[in-house]
Amino acid sequence: MNETVITARPGTPFIDIVREFEATPVQVFRAWTDPELLPRWLGPSGTTTTVLEYDAVTGGRYSYVHRDGSGRHGFRGVFHTVEAGERIVQTFQYDGWPDQVSLETLTFEDLGGRTRVHTHAVFGSVESRDAMIESGMEHGVRDSMTRLDTLLTR
Amino acid sequence: MNETVITARPGTPFIDIVREFEATPVQVFRAWTDPELLPRWLGPSGTTTTVLEYDAVTGGRYSYVHRDGSGRHGFRGVFHTVEAGERIVQTFQYDGWPDQVSLETLTFEDLGGRTRVHTHAVFGSVESRDAMIESGMEHGVRDSMTRLDTLLTR
Repeated sequence: MNETVITARPGTPFIDIVREFEATPVQVFRAWTDPELLPRWLGPSGTTTTVLEYDAVTGGRYSYVHRDGSGRHGFRGVFHTVEAGERIVQTFQYDGWPDQVSLETLTFEDLGGRTRVHTHAVFGSVESRDAMIESGMEHGVRDSMTRLDTLLTR
Repeated sequence: MNETVITARPGTPFIDIVREFEATPVQVFRAWTDPELLPRWLGPSGTTTTVLEYDAVTGGRYSYVHRDGSGRHGFRGVFHTVEAGERIVQTFQYDGWPDQVSLETLTFEDLGGRTRVHTHAVFGSVESRDAMIESGMEHGVRDSMTRLDTLLTR
C-alpha cells in the first residue's frame, strides 16, 4: 500500500499532501473529477458523500456534502484552472468556516504508468492553517487516499 | 489625499493593502465590480484597460487586459465569494506567470460614510510573493488607488 505524506511546517500557512497511485494520470484525474466516481472515495470511511455540483473545468464550480453520525458537512469551491490529467488550481471552503478559504494546486505527475499526486494548499493565515490541521483533516485525507487507491486498483 | 499602505512582511507569502476612500462601501464596491467603471481606474497611469469579462458574483469569472508602451498584459481569476458591499474572495493570475496564482480577500469596512478597503493576498510560496513585489506591482496598486480616489470624489 502506498503512503500518504502530509506536511504542515510550523509557522507557515501551507499544507502539502503527496500520494502515489498504481494508475495513469488520466485514470487518477478522472477519479478526481468525475461526479459519479467522487462519492466512491471522497471523505472518511463511514461517510456518505453527495455531489451537488462538480464542473471540473476552468471557471467551473463544485460543491458536495459529507453525512455521518455527527451530521452534515458541506464543502464548495471554484476551479481557477483545470488542465486535464495534469493540474488543477481550485479554491476550497468548509461551510462551517466560510472565512477560512484556501487555494489548492494539484499536480498529477506521470511516473510511467503510475502517478504521483501533489496537493499544495495555502491558507489566509498560519492560524487558519493550524485550525484546519487541528480539525482532524489528516484522518479524512488518509481515509480518502486509501479508498481512492482501492477504487483505482479494483 | 488618503494613503495606500502596502505590507509584505519578509518570509511570509502575504501582501496586505489598506486604503480608505471618501465614499460609502456601496459606492466603492460598485466602482470595484462594475465593468463600465473598472477601466476608469484599474491599472497604472498611462495604461489602457479593457475588461473582457467581469461577472462579480459567487462562482463568476473575470479577465482584463492592460495595454501600455511595453505591450499587452492579461489578468484573470474566479470569484469564490461575492457579498455585495462587504467582501470579495477571488483568485488572481497574471497571464505571464500562470503558475503563480494567488487568493485575495477584499473587505469593505464602513467607517460611517467613508470606507476602508483591505486586500489580503496569499501566494503559493514566499518566493512567488517576493517575485510579485519585485515586479513593481506596488507602483500599479498606488496609481490605481489614486485614480479610484479621484473617480469617487469627482
